[in-house]
Amino acid sequence: MGYKADTFDVIVVGAGHAGVEAALASARMGAKTLCLTLNLDTVAYMPCNPSVGGPAKGIVVREVDALGGEMARNIDKTHIQMRMLNTGKGPAVRALRAQADKYLYQHEMKKTMENTENLTLRQGMVERLIIEDGECRGVITKTGAEYAAKAVVLTTGTYLRGKIIIGELAYESGPNNMAPSINLSYHLQELGFDMVRFKTGTPPRVNSKTIDYSKTEIQPGDDVPRAFSYETTEYITDQLPCWLTYTGDETHQLINGNLHRSPMYSGMIEGTGPRYCPSIEDKIVRFNDKPRHQIFLEPEGRNTEEVYVQGLSTSLPEDVQKRILATIPGLEKAELMRAGYAIEYDAIVPTQLWPSLETKRVNGLFTAGQLNGTSGYEEAAGQGLMAGINAALKVQDKEPLVLDRSEAYIGVLIDDLITKGTNEPYRLLTSRAEYRLLLRHDNADLRLTKKGHEIGLIPQDRYERFEEKKALIAQEIDRLEHVSIKPSEMVQQVLAESQSTSLKEPMSAASLLKRPEITYPVIHKLVPAETALPETVMEQVEIQVKYSGYIDKQLAQVEKMRKMENKKLPVDLDYMAINGLATEAKQKLHEVRPLSVGQASRVSGVNPADISILLIYLEQGKLAKIAR
Amino acid sequence: MGYKADTFDVIVVGAGHAGVEAALASARMGAKTLCLTLNLDTVAYMPCNPSVGGPAKGIVVREVDALGGEMARNIDKTHIQMRMLNTGKGPAVRALRAQADKYLYQHEMKKTMENTENLTLRQGMVERLIIEDGECRGVITKTGAEYAAKAVVLTTGTYLRGKIIIGELAYESGPNNMAPSINLSYHLQELGFDMVRFKTGTPPRVNSKTIDYSKTEIQPGDDVPRAFSYETTEYITDQLPCWLTYTGDETHQLINGNLHRSPMYSGMIEGTGPRYCPSIEDKIVRFNDKPRHQIFLEPEGRNTEEVYVQGLSTSLPEDVQKRILATIPGLEKAELMRAGYAIEYDAIVPTQLWPSLETKRVNGLFTAGQLNGTSGYEEAAGQGLMAGINAALKVQDKEPLVLDRSEAYIGVLIDDLITKGTNEPYRLLTSRAEYRLLLRHDNADLRLTKKGHEIGLIPQDRYERFEEKKALIAQEIDRLEHVSIKPSEMVQQVLAESQSTSLKEPMSAASLLKRPEITYPVIHKLVPAETALPETVMEQVEIQVKYSGYIDKQLAQVEKMRKMENKKLPVDLDYMAINGLATEAKQKLHEVRPLSVGQASRVSGVNPADISILLIYLEQGKLAKIAR
Ligand SMILES: Cc1cc2nc3c(=O)[nH]c(=O)nc-3n(C[C@H](O)[C@H](O)[C@H](O)COP(=O)(O)OP(=O)(O)OC[C@H]3O[C@@H](n4cnc5c(N)ncnc54)[C@H](O)[C@@H]3O)c2cc1C
Ligand SMILES: Cc1cc2nc3c(=O)[nH]c(=O)nc-3n(C[C@H](O)[C@H](O)[C@H](O)COP(=O)(O)OP(=O)(O)OC[C@H]3O[C@@H](n4cnc5c(N)ncnc54)[C@H](O)[C@@H]3O)c2cc1C
Repeated sequence: MGYKADTFDVIVVGAGHAGVEAALASARMGAKTLCLTLNLDTVAYMPCNPSVGGPAKGIVVREVDALGGEMARNIDKTHIQMRMLNTGKGPAVRALRAQADKYLYQHEMKKTMENTENLTLRQGMVERLIIEDGECRGVITKTGAEYAAKAVVLTTGTYLRGKIIIGELAYESGPNNMAPSINLSYHLQELGFDMVRFKTGTPPRVNSKTIDYSKTEIQPGDDVPRAFSYETTEYITDQLPCWLTYTGDETHQLINGNLHRSPMYSGMIEGTGPRYCPSIEDKIVRFNDKPRHQIFLEPEGRNTEEVYVQGLSTSLPEDVQKRILATIPGLEKAELMRAGYAIEYDAIVPTQLWPSLETKRVNGLFTAGQLNGTSGYEEAAGQGLMAGINAALKVQDKEPLVLDRSEAYIGVLIDDLITKGTNEPYRLLTSRAEYRLLLRHDNADLRLTKKGHEIGLIPQDRYERFEEKKALIAQEIDRLEHVSIKPSEMVQQVLAESQSTSLKEPMSAASLLKRPEITYPVIHKLVPAETALPETVMEQVEIQVKYSGYIDKQLAQVEKMRKMENKKLPVDLDYMAINGLATEAKQKLHEVRPLSVGQASRVSGVNPADISILLIYLEQGKLAKIAR
Repeated sequence: MGYKADTFDVIVVGAGHAGVEAALASARMGAKTLCLTLNLDTVAYMPCNPSVGGPAKGIVVREVDALGGEMARNIDKTHIQMRMLNTGKGPAVRALRAQADKYLYQHEMKKTMENTENLTLRQGMVERLIIEDGECRGVITKTGAEYAAKAVVLTTGTYLRGKIIIGELAYESGPNNMAPSINLSYHLQELGFDMVRFKTGTPPRVNSKTIDYSKTEIQPGDDVPRAFSYETTEYITDQLPCWLTYTGDETHQLINGNLHRSPMYSGMIEGTGPRYCPSIEDKIVRFNDKPRHQIFLEPEGRNTEEVYVQGLSTSLPEDVQKRILATIPGLEKAELMRAGYAIEYDAIVPTQLWPSLETKRVNGLFTAGQLNGTSGYEEAAGQGLMAGINAALKVQDKEPLVLDRSEAYIGVLIDDLITKGTNEPYRLLTSRAEYRLLLRHDNADLRLTKKGHEIGLIPQDRYERFEEKKALIAQEIDRLEHVSIKPSEMVQQVLAESQSTSLKEPMSAASLLKRPEITYPVIHKLVPAETALPETVMEQVEIQVKYSGYIDKQLAQVEKMRKMENKKLPVDLDYMAINGLATEAKQKLHEVRPLSVGQASRVSGVNPADISILLIYLEQGKLAKIAR
């Protein structure tokens, strides 16, 4: 039944949030790319929340953009609301969040793929990989097509042996009753991959017409136009609001009274769920002193009345779900349109991956997204982009692009996965990053555009615009450091207006800007720049000057970290033969095969004493000899 | 696991083209209606051609509109091209055809449903019916919800035990890899319904960017704005073209050489396919003297590059499909995005239905659409509308609405199904109607608006507009019949300009209009109406006057037919006990249980001699006694 179909450089399996980035990146880097997906009507489908961004995740979207990915541009074209979170707090925790028109988001992304050179988008179900001499050489689909390729990226999301669970009911299925992918999962197991069983859940959807919004609080979008992409120049001004309501006593009693029917507690669910996106039954059990939980009502698009009930993820039986809705102010009469459900699926143990997201077991095979044990569209997109880039680089016989923990949240995410593994669906949080002040929303372009340009994803004209911006920032900071502000009457008055203490003696503009209450516009009033600076440049100048002390401290830590990262470990090291390593360390290091002492130090179960031993071996030049 | 969920008047199972009409009609008639469907993302999904209308089918869409259904309005809002077919021919064969934006079509229809009072749209899979004392009293879903109702309409399309077949590959599936519906089919068999196995097929989709349109012929839309709905006042002016190309020698050789791999010829497909939508392999086998077949390239929407390859429906293996494409001018390099496939599914033998579409076996259970053995969106919509209307009427304890063969194509369709049955997917054709000159595109409103108003689907204001139009037509025809045109110089000159012979003596305007070369505008020049008449009124006047001879003849035939239709037969007649009926007639009449002698005369296998016997029994008042 098989037949030799076309030959490509790179094949991407899946067109979810990971797959689309992988395929677009690979094709844009010049690799002849095939993207295969189960259903062309669900490219970039959002099976859960109709939103993109938020803390940490939003910064990933900016990073994807700075590297030349698509998520930012796509959401800029298709959102129904945009909001900057934490504007009152420091720049490290600010994050953009958009509500998506879930259908438009899909259609725009699909159209972009259809119009990308070197990219073939095709419906098809991959069931096996073609492996020759331990190298992945292509894929075989259900229809018997044998596609040859030099590299393959798997991004199968929650489809592998997917199983939907609602109350006492369980059945094989992909998300939202779509067909699951069964054979590929068994094939991966045959190939020797360690798999885990994870689960995630989604809340019910209700009809907007049946919500009594007067009992809820409106959550409008920002008045200021904002965008995720550094390149977006047109803004959607017509925004839709979201609405806030709460669970209450009655809700909690109802759920408590029905816990025995919850598949999470009855033992029906084997898979491990995401701690940071808990179901409502989870929240009520774990935080049983909390009198209420927030429920956000989020429209799923402009052209639909479906509303996503954020905060109410659940796998309780359908009848309980309907009764839960009725206990929530505003939702008393809400018509359930889709029931919430949990889905179990197979994921790969991510410590089986190199930092490039290539699998250690099979050369030329990359994996990304939910398949690697993460949860979330942005986490998927970030990994998909990196896997696509590295698959294309591999085809071009180039070194992989690896971002370190000080360069990007994407770096933190991938390093966490491949070094520490995860025993639950991994979600990116700001607390996972040690250099949060460096990994800001506002400076993703400064961190990554150059790399995006080097690999060919950032076109020359965009790169030049970026370089100009960078130069303007540097010039302005330099000017502020050198221009001195004297305690004139005008100056003292402006300072007083800003509730700032008066100057005793001349001070550089930069030093003055470090005062918490002094903003860049104030400085600009005192010592105007020669030409008007773009908003984004002023923002950068202010942040970089104001927080330079903290930033410098983090940069010094990065320097130290880098030293350890630069102490490379051979990939074929036989840790079992290293005397003095604790047994647990031996086993874990053997499994993870870290590429540097830095990475080794982050492997869980590896202690400073073990690292000292590795360092001694390294200094004495002894490691090279202890190959597996 | 079951739980008592809500109670409704009417439950519609399925939200395809039949289901949406059924649910909307029922809800708009005031019945509290639930519509359950497998996937809310595919409401009114078009699994095959992205178009609506065409010969006979287009007239059904107008009829649906005149009765207060939605298909016409929805396509008017979402088409990318509109064309009147056969404008050069008589009014009986004119038909409108629209290319749909397949995604917009879905979203608009879903939104309309979400915003309809009395209608609850919900995702869910129905697995069983609740039957009490032979009456359908509700449905049970996979999640255990038991919904009570007074009537249920099943419209499950091609999902029942759906099986996709491509070349040597076959797997259980709904259309386009969506989940099939297995249990409900077994349940219907358990209930004693006779089921048949049908199949249908769809062609590949290709990427527009990879088509060389220079080798094809452009097929633009009409310049004149047109609409399906009598109520549409806003027209889409920005149309997209389609393109025409042809199969050739190479195509035919390739197909002939691969027939052994065709599931149609290898015996893999058990289901019977639609004769009038044959696959390309069918066409090449059946019409092997034809040197080429037309292939239309139809865009699937404005926001996608997917193009539907009309004329190339196939279940040949994927590799053959790719090679076929390469033989067609313009498609040499076309990228296959989705492969064509055949789908097999279970349908109900439609002679098990009353003219109301209620099943004979289970009171309160109605069926419509592909499930009844038809094929096509319009056929589905027409039936869905009637089933929805009759379910609501039943709940209101009112007589069903049955359209006869002289009133509507919908009447022809349903009468054919329930009286003759079908042993292949039934498609509506103009040749199926005996009163074609009455069942025109232009007069669907005149035929049906009153009925739509009576059942409550045509609101008062629309009805008044319709009555005004009707009055204007009657007045104008009356005027033309009474106004005499004299052979003046001016008159002779106008006639000469119209290539018409000169008048010898005065003639009524109506008589003059009957001349083939004389149009209404010419008459208007000679004897202007007092006030300007709307375009649609002028069109009606012209057609009714011009064809009055033929129309009157058909009306006389209708009168005869009606006489036979009015000779009612008792439903519980025991045909086996009627002496003189041929054995075949006995069996067939027993099965179909016709409601009138007219219907009996159309049952296949029933001969005029049998009808004479029935008439004799009826006249002698003997039938009433021969109950089962
Ligand atoms: C019910 C549910 C609830 C969720 N809840 C949350 C949440 O609360 N918070 C959160 O952050 N995230 C949540 N998510 C996760 C989020 O949806 C995913 O993280 C994200 O979509 C993952 O992107 P992905 O690209 O890895 O996979 P997906 O978006 O799932 O895409 C997988 C793609 O692979 C294709 N595919 C699968 N198998 C094959 C095959 N054999 N051959 C070809 N193509 C194949 C599919 O067609 C699809 O295109 C939830 C997901 C689901 C389903
Ligand atoms: C591959 C293919 C090729 C076709 N080719 C042609 C063609 O060439 N010419 C032509 O005229 N027509 C063709 N058609 C037929 C056309 O698509 C159908 O006639 C039309 O869609 C039928 O409308 P429907 O409403 O009866 O069913 P569908 O549009 O199929 O809708 C069925 C609905 O029922 C729902 N459903 C099914 N089971 C359940 C359940 N248990 N519980 C709840 N909901 C359920 C589904 O979710 C869906 O919403 C083709 C169809 C397919 C799939």
